[in-house]
Amino acid sequence: MVMYNPKNWFALVFHAYSRRVMTTLWPAIAFMLAYSTVLCYIMLDYFKLHLADFQPTIAMHSLLGIVLGLFLVFRTNTAYDRWWEGRRMWGGMVNSTRNFAMKVAACLPTENHEERDWFAKMIPNFVFAVKENLRNGVQFAELEAPDDKFINDLKRFKHKPNRIASLMYKRINELYRANKVSGDQLINLDKELKDFIDLMGACERIKNTPIPYSYMMYVKKFIFIYIITLPFGFVTQSGYMTVPIVGLVSFVLLSVELIAEEIEDPFGRDINDLPLDDLAGKIKENVKEILL
Amino acid sequence: MVMYNPKNWFALVFHAYSRRVMTTLWPAIAFMLAYSTVLCYIMLDYFKLHLADFQPTIAMHSLLGIVLGLFLVFRTNTAYDRWWEGRRMWGGMVNSTRNFAMKVAACLPTENHEERDWFAKMIPNFVFAVKENLRNGVQFAELEAPDDKFINDLKRFKHKPNRIASLMYKRINELYRANKVSGDQLINLDKELKDFIDLMGACERIKNTPIPYSYMMYVKKFIFIYIITLPFGFVTQSGYMTVPIVGLVSFVLLSVELIAEEIEDPFGRDINDLPLDDLAGKIKENVKEILL
Amino acid sequence: MVMYNPKNWFALVFHAYSRRVMTTLWPAIAFMLAYSTVLCYIMLDYFKLHLADFQPTIAMHSLLGIVLGLFLVFRTNTAYDRWWEGRRMWGGMVNSTRNFAMKVAACLPTENHEERDWFAKMIPNFVFAVKENLRNGVQFAELEAPDDKFINDLKRFKHKPNRIASLMYKRINELYRANKVSGDQLINLDKELKDFIDLMGACERIKNTPIPYSYMMYVKKFIFIYIITLPFGFVTQSGYMTVPIVGLVSFVLLSVELIAEEIEDPFGRDINDLPLDDLAGKIKENVKEILL
Amino acid sequence: MVMYNPKNWFALVFHAYSRRVMTTLWPAIAFMLAYSTVLCYIMLDYFKLHLADFQPTIAMHSLLGIVLGLFLVFRTNTAYDRWWEGRRMWGGMVNSTRNFAMKVAACLPTENHEERDWFAKMIPNFVFAVKENLRNGVQFAELEAPDDKFINDLKRFKHKPNRIASLMYKRINELYRANKVSGDQLINLDKELKDFIDLMGACERIKNTPIPYSYMMYVKKFIFIYIITLPFGFVTQSGYMTVPIVGLVSFVLLSVELIAEEIEDPFGRDINDLPLDDLAGKIKENVKEILL
Amino acid sequence: MVMYNPKNWFALVFHAYSRRVMTTLWPAIAFMLAYSTVLCYIMLDYFKLHLADFQPTIAMHSLLGIVLGLFLVFRTNTAYDRWWEGRRMWGGMVNSTRNFAMKVAACLPTENHEERDWFAKMIPNFVFAVKENLRNGVQFAELEAPDDKFINDLKRFKHKPNRIASLMYKRINELYRANKVSGDQLINLDKELKDFIDLMGACERIKNTPIPYSYMMYVKKFIFIYIITLPFGFVTQSGYMTVPIVGLVSFVLLSVELIAEEIEDPFGRDINDLPLDDLAGKIKENVKEILL
Repeated sequence: MVMYNPKNWFALVFHAYSRRVMTTLWPAIAFMLAYSTVLCYIMLDYFKLHLADFQPTIAMHSLLGIVLGLFLVFRTNTAYDRWWEGRRMWGGMVNSTRNFAMKVAACLPTENHEERDWFAKMIPNFVFAVKENLRNGVQFAELEAPDDKFINDLKRFKHKPNRIASLMYKRINELYRANKVSGDQLINLDKELKDFIDLMGACERIKNTPIPYSYMMYVKKFIFIYIITLPFGFVTQSGYMTVPIVGLVSFVLLSVELIAEEIEDPFGRDINDLPLDDLAGKIKENVKEILL
Repeated sequence: MVMYNPKNWFALVFHAYSRRVMTTLWPAIAFMLAYSTVLCYIMLDYFKLHLADFQPTIAMHSLLGIVLGLFLVFRTNTAYDRWWEGRRMWGGMVNSTRNFAMKVAACLPTENHEERDWFAKMIPNFVFAVKENLRNGVQFAELEAPDDKFINDLKRFKHKPNRIASLMYKRINELYRANKVSGDQLINLDKELKDFIDLMGACERIKNTPIPYSYMMYVKKFIFIYIITLPFGFVTQSGYMTVPIVGLVSFVLLSVELIAEEIEDPFGRDINDLPLDDLAGKIKENVKEILL
Repeated sequence: MVMYNPKNWFALVFHAYSRRVMTTLWPAIAFMLAYSTVLCYIMLDYFKLHLADFQPTIAMHSLLGIVLGLFLVFRTNTAYDRWWEGRRMWGGMVNSTRNFAMKVAACLPTENHEERDWFAKMIPNFVFAVKENLRNGVQFAELEAPDDKFINDLKRFKHKPNRIASLMYKRINELYRANKVSGDQLINLDKELKDFIDLMGACERIKNTPIPYSYMMYVKKFIFIYIITLPFGFVTQSGYMTVPIVGLVSFVLLSVELIAEEIEDPFGRDINDLPLDDLAGKIKENVKEILL
Repeated sequence: MVMYNPKNWFALVFHAYSRRVMTTLWPAIAFMLAYSTVLCYIMLDYFKLHLADFQPTIAMHSLLGIVLGLFLVFRTNTAYDRWWEGRRMWGGMVNSTRNFAMKVAACLPTENHEERDWFAKMIPNFVFAVKENLRNGVQFAELEAPDDKFINDLKRFKHKPNRIASLMYKRINELYRANKVSGDQLINLDKELKDFIDLMGACERIKNTPIPYSYMMYVKKFIFIYIITLPFGFVTQSGYMTVPIVGLVSFVLLSVELIAEEIEDPFGRDINDLPLDDLAGKIKENVKEILL
Repeated sequence: MVMYNPKNWFALVFHAYSRRVMTTLWPAIAFMLAYSTVLCYIMLDYFKLHLADFQPTIAMHSLLGIVLGLFLVFRTNTAYDRWWEGRRMWGGMVNSTRNFAMKVAACLPTENHEERDWFAKMIPNFVFAVKENLRNGVQFAELEAPDDKFINDLKRFKHKPNRIASLMYKRINELYRANKVSGDQLINLDKELKDFIDLMGACERIKNTPIPYSYMMYVKKFIFIYIITLPFGFVTQSGYMTVPIVGLVSFVLLSVELIAEEIEDPFGRDINDLPLDDLAGKIKENVKEILL
């Protein structure tokens, strides 16, 4: 995620979008400009059509424009909701790790360094494992091993974050059986462990479920049909002004879809993606401050 | 569900929708093209009507176009919300089964192979039973019998997933009475069992409740009236250009409704449906990794 | 609720709405057609007004059309949300009754026929009482008396479902005091009883609270003003084509409001209402299968 | 709140809004009619402007009309959401008081008249205190004193409903310490007491937080600019028809804002406000029926 | 936050927005007025272009106007949702602190002045620390030290509110170990402490996460393109009337974006920001009244 000043209009109006948006946007607009120039030339200079010969289809574009506009907003809302839900889940991760750390710290006596140390390593380990599991796979270098066997044990399991959570569930229940954590405290601690799994699952859900194939196709087909027929709506009325008009409208419509594509998968490392590395780092710092 | 690359515009613009959408869409558009050609012929070449004789009704189509566009978006939102709620419920299923497996694994000693094995079979059984209960009925071949009587006992019950959940509730309470699970652990385990039933019920609700009959009728009536009167809005002004215009507008409007029809019932085996088989398989794998 | 095939376009386009919608819709449209015919006659044939004499007010109708469209969608969303919330509450009823029955079945030994039988009667009784309380009042014939005094006792209370829930709360607490249900089990059972009351209350809220009086007035006034002035927007331009145009637009706009009126009160016995009788029957069947 | 039949179109179309809306609406529309008449006279009869001299600004009003329409719906949604959230909170109050009464009734033996009586008075007292706290301040006449000191004690506290809830929390904990309520029952009762405070707080939040000052200003400024410039969009085209057009559009736009003003503060005694007195009365009746 | 009367139209229509909005709005509108005057002069008086020479691009502005309008509403909704979520979180803070204070008051005997006093200071301390942590950093002057070491201890920690919450968690667990708070009461108290952390985390999330960079850019680019090309849509048709039209449209469109910028970060000290100081003060007063 890039940090920016939302009130700096100048920068926001004139800076380019992320490279990924641009690599699709420029060629598409260039094509649209070339296409509408050729079309204008053929219709206006070659066939010498006038308003009387060819009635522009602007009425159709007006009718469809409303429907298209509404669908672009549907697309934007959907993409933004996914992004914001991802953010809420990671906000929940911040909350649950803090709560869990505080509860562990309150349950265990201050001098129980062993247990405190174990949780101060394992809670961030869980968070870092979830983070990279949403990307390309857990990076062991990011984890802190509480004991020698940990990394090798973890490698045996396919779903690493599940394993780490399992170990925490287990440890808490062992403390409970050893009467270091009472039954009432167990009930309170359980809420946070449950949250860990629920938050991780919600992130996996967002990552693994694109919006339905047919809607994705529909919006793209619709934009394509709309801008490819757009010159016919202006050519005999506005002449060569059609070219910049088509360019502008294409820019506005294609941008929405391309931005939505980028926003809706929020766990990568793009400028629009959520700052997962920062959040995981912040969680680690918080947990250590609370427990140690 | 089909896997696709949301950034591959070329494929998405030119590929056809699912077969089910197409079998209704093509005939409808073919009819609209034929109908508007005939109408153009009659009005322009037979009766030789001009703008002065017949004022196009485009103003009416503009007025109604806004209302129609808004209703199509209402339709899309409703269908998408059902689809996404279905997905959230199955995401919840992933979470609750993981949580339940972890809690059982933490409560029971590692050497209690019998109980662990029983739950490692029954949790996935519940998920598979729910999945097929949303389709045509539970497939016994997908279930793993923990003992010999299980399948025969299950056949006696009308609602199979209920029975499996009942058995898990019972088993947990037996472990509790046998002091293998403490009261505090019982309270924690109960949350997940409750989630199982709630998630199953929510899926059944989506499956069994189409959107209200009158709305379904209204949207379809409205689209029909709109496109059937559309040629009158263009014919005396745009001549035979009316035919492709009506074709395009029909394509755009009918697609929305047909896609919505497909999305709103998300538990089948269509290309737009949720990947329930994959999710159930993933749950099975996860649960076994945690418990065994 | 009527069962229908959402993909049967032919039936949905040509069938009539429910009788209740029709009894208001047809007279209104007939009036609008007559009114605009008379108006056309007076303006076109009596006063012989032309475009030069009377500029149509279509620009005003365009401006207001957007606002009206947005309000009709607000109206539709509101009505649909109420309907869907009602459905979610009854889905919750299915879930909570199943959960409660399973928990009771797991807590009590299999041979405790007396208690199981009592709950197998009282849970459905609660559901049936809630259902009819949302209509005209509890029908005693639908209830199964667990003992002789039950019906007479119930008659003494004004709010029947409250009384039934009270009896279940009491019974559970008696079992608790008799050590047949442990404290931990009591905590788990309490969640479902709480849900019963919350779900019932939510249904009562939907039933007893129409949308604010002023909004209801506003939408109806707005539709009325819009269609009554609509002929002035077309008459000098489109001549007698104004009559079918006004008819169509009236049909589209009035339908929305009339359907919304029907949807927003979802607990009756209309074709658009929720299938409460089916749901209550299904709950009864489920509960009996689980408990007996 | 006024009771009305949502299907009585005649009454709803022709009755006037609440007096509060009317006292602002009529003068504003009268002013707009006068203002546009004067403007028409000056432009058409004094300066004798024609279409060729003054091009109407209707295109601008079209552009802005969409944005304005969308903002009016934003305004309406916001107001309605506040109203409906208020209603949900009071529905929650009905549920929580019922639940609490049932739980207390189930925990305490039937013959414990003293405690039952105390709660049968204090629960409604809490509700009545919350209700009037949202208006002008608690009315002691509405409360039932369970003992002689109650009213005087209450007067010493600034936040009366807080005090009443505190007393209930205290009483429950005293019963717990006296072993009349077990620990498990305490956990169950606690949920309802927590709900009481949460529901009260949510109502206070709605009451004390108008929508942001800038949005309120923006919508009003926008409507004002729109209708004050509207005559310029019609005058040279429609002549004196401009006057009723401006009147109608003003009526439609101003109504939205004025109704929203009235809906968004739902705890008063207007015809659009929530029936708090009825709800509080119903709660009292329910609680007494359950507990006594 | 400024207090205002939402029904005082006169003030709301004619008062200026907050200074921050104005410092961007006026220069921008002044620029647009100058720019379109120059453009009108060049096109109308220098090149003497007429309608026949230059067809206005108003059709393009109509098409884009719908899309722009929808995006401005998306922008407004997003900003308002953030603002309202912030408000709900602080409403939750009011509720949780009241609940926690009441529970502590009910658990501890009235004569335990030491503990009551400690919590009566620490709960408001937490709230004040959260408040300033959302701004520039905790102000120690606002906190009440329950003992001499408190402030110095707090200074050692980076995240002050976390530390205060940790201390409360610890204190409650010490009371539990000392049998002054029972296990059941611990479970009830835990809910509120968990809420404290969750509410704080949600506020931090809103503060630290602006809407995605690309959307922010998109909306600003779109508005810029729209108003900078707007004069071309009117100039040959409306002549110098183009200047006020462009001014008005710019005012309406820019205002939306500027207000949204201000609303979406609701924890500052602007006239649109939430009244955090008042709320924190109210919480302090409430907590003290309950506990002391």
